[in-house]
Amino acid sequence: MKIPISKTAPSAPFRSATIELQPQFYDVDPMGVVWHGNYFRFLECARSALLDSFHYGYLEMEKSGYFWPIVETRMKYVSPVALGQKITVTAILVEWENRLRIDYEIFNLATRRRATKAQTTQIAIDKHSREMCFTSPAILFEKLGLSQK
Amino acid sequence: MKIPISKTAPSAPFRSATIELQPQFYDVDPMGVVWHGNYFRFLECARSALLDSFHYGYLEMEKSGYFWPIVETRMKYVSPVALGQKITVTAILVEWENRLRIDYEIFNLATRRRATKAQTTQIAIDKHSREMCFTSPAILFEKLGLSQK
Amino acid sequence: MKIPISKTAPSAPFRSATIELQPQFYDVDPMGVVWHGNYFRFLECARSALLDSFHYGYLEMEKSGYFWPIVETRMKYVSPVALGQKITVTAILVEWENRLRIDYEIFNLATRRRATKAQTTQIAIDKHSREMCFTSPAILFEKLGLSQK
Amino acid sequence: MKIPISKTAPSAPFRSATIELQPQFYDVDPMGVVWHGNYFRFLECARSALLDSFHYGYLEMEKSGYFWPIVETRMKYVSPVALGQKITVTAILVEWENRLRIDYEIFNLATRRRATKAQTTQIAIDKHSREMCFTSPAILFEKLGLSQK
Repeated sequence: MKIPISKTAPSAPFRSATIELQPQFYDVDPMGVVWHGNYFRFLECARSALLDSFHYGYLEMEKSGYFWPIVETRMKYVSPVALGQKITVTAILVEWENRLRIDYEIFNLATRRRATKAQTTQIAIDKHSREMCFTSPAILFEKLGLSQK
Repeated sequence: MKIPISKTAPSAPFRSATIELQPQFYDVDPMGVVWHGNYFRFLECARSALLDSFHYGYLEMEKSGYFWPIVETRMKYVSPVALGQKITVTAILVEWENRLRIDYEIFNLATRRRATKAQTTQIAIDKHSREMCFTSPAILFEKLGLSQK
Repeated sequence: MKIPISKTAPSAPFRSATIELQPQFYDVDPMGVVWHGNYFRFLECARSALLDSFHYGYLEMEKSGYFWPIVETRMKYVSPVALGQKITVTAILVEWENRLRIDYEIFNLATRRRATKAQTTQIAIDKHSREMCFTSPAILFEKLGLSQK
Repeated sequence: MKIPISKTAPSAPFRSATIELQPQFYDVDPMGVVWHGNYFRFLECARSALLDSFHYGYLEMEKSGYFWPIVETRMKYVSPVALGQKITVTAILVEWENRLRIDYEIFNLATRRRATKAQTTQIAIDKHSREMCFTSPAILFEKLGLSQK
C-alpha cells in the first residue's frame, strides 16, 4: 500500500486529511492495547474529515442522490497503541474515477512509530434505483474541482 | 429498584425475557472486566427479546406510527464480569400505561452473583407530528392483550 | 441533578472539564440520532479530561494502588443529537470525600439545546487486597490539593 | 479468498465453527444496515468459538505463554444486512504452521445471500520476551492434535 505518485495526471488533486486522536479506556483490550476492530472507528473519523474537506460528507452524498457504502477494507497492524498514547490518522484519496479508494496511516505519537496502515474502497449506489454505478457520478468530479473526461 | 408486585391489578401481564450472553474480548477493558458502558448493549439484546415476545420490536413500532426513544437509564454495578464468564440478562416490563419502563438484572453464571441491575424508560413519539405522547398509544395495549381503561 | 453550590466549603475546589466532540456516522442509529448507549463513551472522554486535569487519570490511579470502578450511572436524554451536529461534554466533580461523583451535561451546539445530563459514581478499590474503600484514599486529596480532614 | 482444499495433507484437521447471530439496533447505521466496522465484532465471536473448539481461546493462549495479536484483516462486503435479519458467521482455520489464518463467511439468513467474506491473520508473540515467533509454537500443534514436523 504505497502513497500513489500519479504519473499520468500531474494536475490531479492530492487530497488528504490528518486528525489527531486520543484512544480512550473503552478502546483498549485486556492486553492493554487498542482492540484491532476499534481502528475502523478511527479511520471513519479521518475519512469524514477528508470528505468534508471537499464538501462531500455523508449528508451531502445523500443529498446528491448517492450512497457510497464501503465494499472492501484492509488493515495491517504494525505496532500496538497503548492506553495514554496519542495518534494521528491520515486519510489520502487515491482513486476516484470509478470508485473511491482511500489509504490511511495511523501514527503513534508516543512511540514515533507507524501503528497501522489501511485502505477502504467505496462505490456509488444510486439512491433511487439502488443500482451500483460502474463509474463515479459527475457530482464527485465537481466536488473535487475536476472536469470529467 | 424492586421487581414490581402489582397489588391493584392481579391479572396484569407479567412480561419478561431472559437471554444468555457470552461477553467477548472486545467487551473487556484493561482491568480485565466488562467496560461499564458495554452493558447497555446487553440490555438492548434483552429488551429486544422482550419486545419481540409481544410483537412490538423496533420495526413494528415504526410501522405502528411511533418511535419509542429511551429517555432515561440507570445502572448499578454490583460485581464485575471477567473474560470467559457467561451471563444472563433478564428484562421485565414494569410500566406501560404512560411510558415503557423495563427493569433488568444481569446475573454472572460463573460466580453465581448478580452483576448489575438497571432500568430504562421509553416514551412514545408520534412519527408524523414528532410530538411526545403523554399516555401510551392504544397499539401498545393491543400488543399486550389488554383492554385500555 | 444540580450543579453543586458548595455552601459549607467556599474554598473547595470546583473542578470541571469541557470537551467538544463530533459524533460520527457509527454513533448514529437507524432513527438518525446518536444511539443512547454511545453517550457513555462521550462521558468517558470528558471524565478522562477532568481526571487528567489534576493528574489522576487511569494510569495514575493504577500507579497509586487503587482502581476506581464505576458503581452507578444515570442519564436523562433531553433532546436528540443528529448526524453532523457537534456537542460539548462538561464533566464536573461534585463529590470526592467517600466516592468520586461526577455530573455531566451534553450540549448540542447545532440546536443550542441541552442533549443529556448524567452522573457517574466511582469508588476506590485497593489494588492488592481487592477491598472497597469506605472513604477516598489520601492520594485523591493530595491530587486535588486538599488537606484531608 | 477460497475455502482451502488441502491437496498435500489429506489428514490435516479441517477446523471450523459456525455461529448464528442477530445483529442489534446498535449495530445498524443511518442507512438502515449494519455499519461496516461492526462486522469485526461478529468475526471475533466466530473466531472465539473456533479457538474454544480446540481449547485455545484467549485465556488458554495467555496461560501457554503466548499472545496472538491480529496483524492483518481483510473484508469484502457483498450484500448488506438490515435490521431484523439474522446471520451465520463461519470461521475456518486455513493456516497454522507459521501463523494463524482464519477465513470467514457471513451469510444473511433472511436474504439467503452471502453478506461478507473476510480473513484475519494472527502471529504468536512470546509473552515474556515480547518477541515475534516466526513459526507457530509447539502448543498450537498439540492443541490441534498434530505432531509437529
